[in-house]
Amino acid sequence: MALADFQGRIKKLRSLMEKNRLDACLINSRNDVYYYTGNDIGDSCFLLISEAKPCIFVTSLSNEIESAKEFNAIFIKGVSDISKRLKRFRRVGFDEYSTSYKVFSDLKKSKPVLKPSASIIKEPRMVKDEWEMEQISKAAGITAKTMSNLGEILGKSETDLSEQIELSFRKAGAKPSFDTIIASGKHSAFIHHKPDKAMIKQDDLVIIDIGAVFNSYCSDMTRTFCKKPGPKERKIIENISGIQGELIDMAKDGIKYDDMQKRYEALLKRKGYKLLHSFGHGIGIGVHERPAKGDTLKSGMVITVEPGTYIKGFGGYRIEDMVIVRKGRSKILTR
Amino acid sequence: MALADFQGRIKKLRSLMEKNRLDACLINSRNDVYYYTGNDIGDSCFLLISEAKPCIFVTSLSNEIESAKEFNAIFIKGVSDISKRLKRFRRVGFDEYSTSYKVFSDLKKSKPVLKPSASIIKEPRMVKDEWEMEQISKAAGITAKTMSNLGEILGKSETDLSEQIELSFRKAGAKPSFDTIIASGKHSAFIHHKPDKAMIKQDDLVIIDIGAVFNSYCSDMTRTFCKKPGPKERKIIENISGIQGELIDMAKDGIKYDDMQKRYEALLKRKGYKLLHSFGHGIGIGVHERPAKGDTLKSGMVITVEPGTYIKGFGGYRIEDMVIVRKGRSKILTR
Repeated sequence: MALADFQGRIKKLRSLMEKNRLDACLINSRNDVYYYTGNDIGDSCFLLISEAKPCIFVTSLSNEIESAKEFNAIFIKGVSDISKRLKRFRRVGFDEYSTSYKVFSDLKKSKPVLKPSASIIKEPRMVKDEWEMEQISKAAGITAKTMSNLGEILGKSETDLSEQIELSFRKAGAKPSFDTIIASGKHSAFIHHKPDKAMIKQDDLVIIDIGAVFNSYCSDMTRTFCKKPGPKERKIIENISGIQGELIDMAKDGIKYDDMQKRYEALLKRKGYKLLHSFGHGIGIGVHERPAKGDTLKSGMVITVEPGTYIKGFGGYRIEDMVIVRKGRSKILTR
Repeated sequence: MALADFQGRIKKLRSLMEKNRLDACLINSRNDVYYYTGNDIGDSCFLLISEAKPCIFVTSLSNEIESAKEFNAIFIKGVSDISKRLKRFRRVGFDEYSTSYKVFSDLKKSKPVLKPSASIIKEPRMVKDEWEMEQISKAAGITAKTMSNLGEILGKSETDLSEQIELSFRKAGAKPSFDTIIASGKHSAFIHHKPDKAMIKQDDLVIIDIGAVFNSYCSDMTRTFCKKPGPKERKIIENISGIQGELIDMAKDGIKYDDMQKRYEALLKRKGYKLLHSFGHGIGIGVHERPAKGDTLKSGMVITVEPGTYIKGFGGYRIEDMVIVRKGRSKILTR
């Protein structure tokens, strides 16, 4: 059993900060605070990384007591209290995506020098360490097992299936990592359909897109079932499965995310399908995280590969697996 | 059965916009978009309210198709596309809490006049209409029933209890509205303790703070159990229950939220307890919503009343009920 290496993660961040001439970084997304400290404190918490001991600012006294470990925990009344403490740094990075306009305005009160730095803060999360790989593999395993144990789906409703899946996650010590998608028949033409009372029929395409979170790490997997596929369904299944195979073959250390996306678009176009979403996404503490647009795949990253096509009034087909990027052939986690 | 009155809600907002000289409002929190349109589209969706027909900007083509009803749905590639459309208005309100620094920067690209207006956007949500009351009452009823059907808690672990509670919600067609809090023994001194493997013992104070979301509306309720209370526990139970009674009596149309809070602090002080959180909060589509600091209670608002005390190394006690504010005595929903 590996251990989570928080010191190593902070070291990586400090090295990126140095390259970008930041002498401090204010981190305030729940997932990032968890990544760097192991504390899942909630949404209104701030972590300050500088040369000194990392410092967690908390707004609830009780949470402070429970969370203080190898970090200084400082109780604050409001964000303005943080602003004063940032003035002594020359350049402070902040997360422009998780910082609201209101919080930004409060952080600015004492006029510190703030620089949008989400890409720096999130970069270390891309390549997973050994401990993280263990958690992700478990999350993926739970999802794959749930998918293969679905049993007979005919005669069940979409909500029946989603309940069955979430129970299966719970029994394995996990929870859904996002709202379960069960889209049968015409519903399958919609990418994010919510399960309803629709009963599953034998000629339906049934998209089942599910994920578990285990020990704070996420999985994401899609299968599309069809009990009695007609010729049109068969063609779609064959085409999209083929595209997925090509993309998984391509996913290697050194390949650009954007080149994968271009290739995906070209493969869809060749079959006459429209591009409606990206080929896949990075996954870890977040269901969707980097690598994304602009990034290059590296050994130890975990991504999903999820081609799909959607035809209004007919239905859709999507297949999604999680893979570990390596120098050679990527390793599929969800089979 | 009442029906959700979206037109009425938008009318209320337009009247507030007029008072505040806004000719448009850009709404982008998921709960607000749901409130004004009945569409639960997700986090990256924008609703524009002006004199014209309301317009939903969506970033996924498939979601657009499913959500378009009495609203114009416009597919956009990115937030900059919205910026251009805002230029024709003199003053555009936006939600400074749910708009990130990044989105704000993108919205500013075409230099529209943007005004922080979260308080205006959220004000209509405070007083619930008949349909909303039905959903909230159901959510509260599910939670109260789950609480009274807990059965024997001795010999169960905190996680056992949280699983039992979430299953009970699911059977009633609901889901947890927040992370279930089961805090036994010393854990009960922490306001937001996460359930762990700790077994419940007969002299433990056991805080059970749970809530269900039914049809998008939330409930929130806390009970603290103690099988064999000693004199110290008995005193705390008596004091906090008494404080809750006084606060519920006070919660009437015309009373200021801040005066409730001041009264809560005074009541705690009289018993020698520290103030560690607010006396309660508004509840509806959000678990925590207005009324809050600065608001005045009005008939038809729904709030929680949740006094508590927490003693490090010993334990804590909290009791929480949901009440409907009225001209006369408020009505308790969670009993």
